[in-house]
Amino acid sequence: MDFFDLIDKRRSVRKFSNESIPEEVITKALEAAVLAANSSNLQPWEFYWVKSRNKKDDLIKACFSQNAAKTAQELIVAVSRIDTWRRNRNLILKHYKEKGELLPIVEKYYNKVVPLAYAHDRIGILGLLRKIISFFISFIGLFKPVARGPIFRHDVFEIVTKTTALACQNFMMALVAQGYDSCPMEGFDHTRVKKILKLSSKSHVVMVLGVGKADPKGIYGERFRIDEDLVIKII
Amino acid sequence: MDFFDLIDKRRSVRKFSNESIPEEVITKALEAAVLAANSSNLQPWEFYWVKSRNKKDDLIKACFSQNAAKTAQELIVAVSRIDTWRRNRNLILKHYKEKGELLPIVEKYYNKVVPLAYAHDRIGILGLLRKIISFFISFIGLFKPVARGPIFRHDVFEIVTKTTALACQNFMMALVAQGYDSCPMEGFDHTRVKKILKLSSKSHVVMVLGVGKADPKGIYGERFRIDEDLVIKII
Repeated sequence: MDFFDLIDKRRSVRKFSNESIPEEVITKALEAAVLAANSSNLQPWEFYWVKSRNKKDDLIKACFSQNAAKTAQELIVAVSRIDTWRRNRNLILKHYKEKGELLPIVEKYYNKVVPLAYAHDRIGILGLLRKIISFFISFIGLFKPVARGPIFRHDVFEIVTKTTALACQNFMMALVAQGYDSCPMEGFDHTRVKKILKLSSKSHVVMVLGVGKADPKGIYGERFRIDEDLVIKII
Repeated sequence: MDFFDLIDKRRSVRKFSNESIPEEVITKALEAAVLAANSSNLQPWEFYWVKSRNKKDDLIKACFSQNAAKTAQELIVAVSRIDTWRRNRNLILKHYKEKGELLPIVEKYYNKVVPLAYAHDRIGILGLLRKIISFFISFIGLFKPVARGPIFRHDVFEIVTKTTALACQNFMMALVAQGYDSCPMEGFDHTRVKKILKLSSKSHVVMVLGVGKADPKGIYGERFRIDEDLVIKII
């Protein structure tokens, strides 16, 4: 199917039929997900495919038992993490070293620049330090462009969640490309979802994705978008 | 082209050729972008297509004159906003009313639930109030699933940026589907970019997208992803 037909076809499905979905469909969609663009290639995402019946029941409850969760054949939780950058950075450097392709500029970027952006402590001392430094940097910024962030822990969370969302859109589109549907849910008890997945405070639950084949009444109404002129601006 | 071939083909291009890109290609990709899934259909995104030579030069400088910006035929800035929800919510309600399809549950959702999540003041008083309320809600949360956020202004920013990223991935994929390439950039002076676009503190610059046709040397090395087992987990 043409890409733009897939774009048209992707809708959030709130009720799924009882047709099961082959494992390889999900796997293929997850593999497409992690090929998304991402910040500094640090791949701070995680996808939890919740198959255990008990965990699935708990997850449905944590999603307030909404139809999109209750009727989903499969449930996948997209998670962003602010603490996997060090491991992933090391894997990236190892990969380039082994291939004999590690450029000094790349090594410097991952060893010097990335930690400046991503290193954080729980209390927020590093964030405070960054805030003070950024105050001084803003004076230099009067004369030339400067990098001004991320500063606080929540700024890093915004970056990793943003990157994970790129992968989520790929995931949803990859399901449509294979004839299946999804519903991205943000209405859930995030504390409970994190408990089910055994996640620490260094993770955010980006969305819970219900997956299956749409029930004939699974799409609630026509798609509505506000006028393009309100959101697409030529300047 | 098959969707999964498009997924393989989409790479971040750091250097573009001097082949120009037809206007309708960008327009079509932007129209695909805003059909992405998004939070409560509130469409908190904005896409600025920077065509003015002066503004474009300023934007390139604000992106530290990196190749991906300097050589891009077109530059588009994706922005997320925490202040357009009220306007968009009203447009949604008007649309459904006019069609005679406004269900009481939908009206209640947009008039009661959405403001609880999105209303914010600059100083953060509402955020603080929410934090206090959420403290009490967490006791109820011991017994049943509860909604616990968003609480602070930065939580709302994470939501709108997440949603805007979904649209960005569509945009990049829609370019590949039409034979063009892009580079999503996060390395820029956000204060300067916001100044160029005349944005307030209620907006975040999600990414600057350089667009064009890849130069033969435009892709820096093979794609590398860490082992799937590290990020795709079956539980």
